[in-house]
Amino acid sequence: MPSNSNASLLTATAAFAGGSLLTAVYMKYFSSKQAASFPATNQDRTETNTTSTVQYPHYDYDNDPKGSFMKICDMLIQEVIETLPERYDLPKPEAEYLQRMLEYNVKGGKMNRGMMVVESGVLLFGRDNVDNTTLCRLAILGWAIEWLQAWLLVADDIMDSSVTRRGQPCWYKKISPWYIAINDAFTTEAFVFQILKRHFAYDANVLVQLWDLMLETTLQTELGQLSDTLCDVLELKDLTPSRWELIVQYKTSYYSFYLSVAFAMVLRGITKQDAYDAAREILIIMGVYFQAQDDYLDCYATPEQLGKVGTDIQDKKCGWLFTKAYHELCPPEQRNYLDKHYGKCKVGSTEEQKIKELYTSLGLPQMYQEYEQASYDKIMSLRDRQAGATLAAAGVPWEVFETFLRKVYKRSM
Amino acid sequence: MPSNSNASLLTATAAFAGGSLLTAVYMKYFSSKQAASFPATNQDRTETNTTSTVQYPHYDYDNDPKGSFMKICDMLIQEVIETLPERYDLPKPEAEYLQRMLEYNVKGGKMNRGMMVVESGVLLFGRDNVDNTTLCRLAILGWAIEWLQAWLLVADDIMDSSVTRRGQPCWYKKISPWYIAINDAFTTEAFVFQILKRHFAYDANVLVQLWDLMLETTLQTELGQLSDTLCDVLELKDLTPSRWELIVQYKTSYYSFYLSVAFAMVLRGITKQDAYDAAREILIIMGVYFQAQDDYLDCYATPEQLGKVGTDIQDKKCGWLFTKAYHELCPPEQRNYLDKHYGKCKVGSTEEQKIKELYTSLGLPQMYQEYEQASYDKIMSLRDRQAGATLAAAGVPWEVFETFLRKVYKRSM
Repeated sequence: MPSNSNASLLTATAAFAGGSLLTAVYMKYFSSKQAASFPATNQDRTETNTTSTVQYPHYDYDNDPKGSFMKICDMLIQEVIETLPERYDLPKPEAEYLQRMLEYNVKGGKMNRGMMVVESGVLLFGRDNVDNTTLCRLAILGWAIEWLQAWLLVADDIMDSSVTRRGQPCWYKKISPWYIAINDAFTTEAFVFQILKRHFAYDANVLVQLWDLMLETTLQTELGQLSDTLCDVLELKDLTPSRWELIVQYKTSYYSFYLSVAFAMVLRGITKQDAYDAAREILIIMGVYFQAQDDYLDCYATPEQLGKVGTDIQDKKCGWLFTKAYHELCPPEQRNYLDKHYGKCKVGSTEEQKIKELYTSLGLPQMYQEYEQASYDKIMSLRDRQAGATLAAAGVPWEVFETFLRKVYKRSM
Repeated sequence: MPSNSNASLLTATAAFAGGSLLTAVYMKYFSSKQAASFPATNQDRTETNTTSTVQYPHYDYDNDPKGSFMKICDMLIQEVIETLPERYDLPKPEAEYLQRMLEYNVKGGKMNRGMMVVESGVLLFGRDNVDNTTLCRLAILGWAIEWLQAWLLVADDIMDSSVTRRGQPCWYKKISPWYIAINDAFTTEAFVFQILKRHFAYDANVLVQLWDLMLETTLQTELGQLSDTLCDVLELKDLTPSRWELIVQYKTSYYSFYLSVAFAMVLRGITKQDAYDAAREILIIMGVYFQAQDDYLDCYATPEQLGKVGTDIQDKKCGWLFTKAYHELCPPEQRNYLDKHYGKCKVGSTEEQKIKELYTSLGLPQMYQEYEQASYDKIMSLRDRQAGATLAAAGVPWEVFETFLRKVYKRSM
């Protein structure tokens, strides 16, 4: 029996190892979608903050992409507001106040950032593979960005003493007492995280990635906001082109460009860091270019094109035109003129007009066209380099970036 | 060979099943501590936002609990500030500004909430089992609460137009331009989540629980803040005892009481929801009692005891004394007096003095003593009921709650 026993032992050992291996592989790859559970916050009443079986509406991406996207916002507002009396004992007047606050602030934008999550997602999943639930989830992530922007703007408007926003009074101007708007900004932010929890807790790993991206982007934007706001107390000599680039990268690019694509990539299950790094590189360039364009239009677009009156010169903004003019192009005499009047003259005044004429005489419109072309070329050149190859290998089609670029390149408003 | 072959098959099957089972059990219970990874936010430079091998300082819990706790705050500020130029390209003046902002706002409190996380944790782990790393991690969670409170107070002070805080000018009064304080509040909040990520990403499950608790508590506190702030535009008849209780539960109890213990429970690995529910029930009662006491002291404590001048009557606060007096105790004539003067008279005025005398003549000091005793009794009675049993079964010793209660019961400041 000895040899037979050895054979048995071998068989048993092999079988044991095989069982181990198969189970390990199964547990790692097939049962890895583990729902997040929240024992510390569930509370012992009807659980309304996470729903694994949400009934999503029909998303008509082909025929009504904008209308479908809007419907998701209505769903999110309704879910958030319904939760307030049930789960947080909030009295009716407060819940109604918050509903009005959300309707007023999160809607009414161009929704480019939000809808870009859906478009990126469709390209990442493939039009034929993306199901209705996935479309709705992409739209929810899109609204997470729109809500993020909403509270940033509520806070921004207070800090800038702005009067109107999107053609209506700023929220803090609309309500009494005005300072509740500060709390409203924080509350809107908190709602975003609650929305992510409700709709993505079906997979703890996805939820942690989404929360992380949202938290990191929020911090980046606030650091950009700090650098921007401190310009108010800096001297003109400190408003340099490199400071401008830093501010716009942090204050705008991350949340307006990178976040849209990164959200779609997370939902698609992409886990390779080099793909995110490559996407970020491209989208940061695009975001910086977008802001240069914004600064250019503030000066040169008509109020009709712009939808508002440009106030950058009056507000002493660290803008693309100013930093170029002051630090790279100005002869001393004209720099003195800027020292005397930039940030100190009213919109429509002779001094403001003269500064605009100075910009033109220094050749800034021409330089801007060149900068625009150079940004475009730089982005497109990345397609055929390491970045493009890395993205292709990770399953991120180049079309995502071209779609985004088409939306911003040479826009006139 | 048939029977032998059958035996072999059986052995192999049993071995296969055994291998599967053991591996499944191992993977579920022993390798479940999976580090969180963040491909979308790591960025391709030196990774400074998560560190699995932080070198923690020596925590001398027995001989210098307060000094050890303070040292952790210094470590956290240093980590956060160091990260700014490296990872976020933040210029030196901005980084220095944020350092000054943090030093000014997060230190200087009584630190009861934060140190309570450490004390609860020591009771939960057992003094002999808690290692240095765990003590430091508990202290980090304690500071997460202190930093949360710091940004809440920065925002609160703006909303209340306060002048001093903790014996020094409010932050928004201290800086120029004042409105950066709004961004500072948001930034401090973002730093808290970054701190949690840095120190708890070693276990994705722990991190998601901590983030979730922090996010939920933030929302609860903001909803309480909304209900409180809207009192400014409500009529006195709407400032009812039940509204008072709602406000204080949301605005104070969750972050000041429940969060401290729940954080320690998460770190201890407690996953039973009923234990969290039981802890919450007890700590909410304690928090509500604590706020009644605060309201009582605002009226009856001397400025020396209080460390500031009480302004609740001037500020038309929805306080414990007022809601009781107006809705439950006042004869019509004296209610008229409140209608005429509550929230409209200055600190130290005859009218304010008369309202305090009215409270006394209505027997409120006596009622307060009774309420104090009743709260104490109610909490202690829970020890021997379902709540106490549930907690004991989950490994949460009753001592946690008594320790907390000792800190607040019959305090005079």
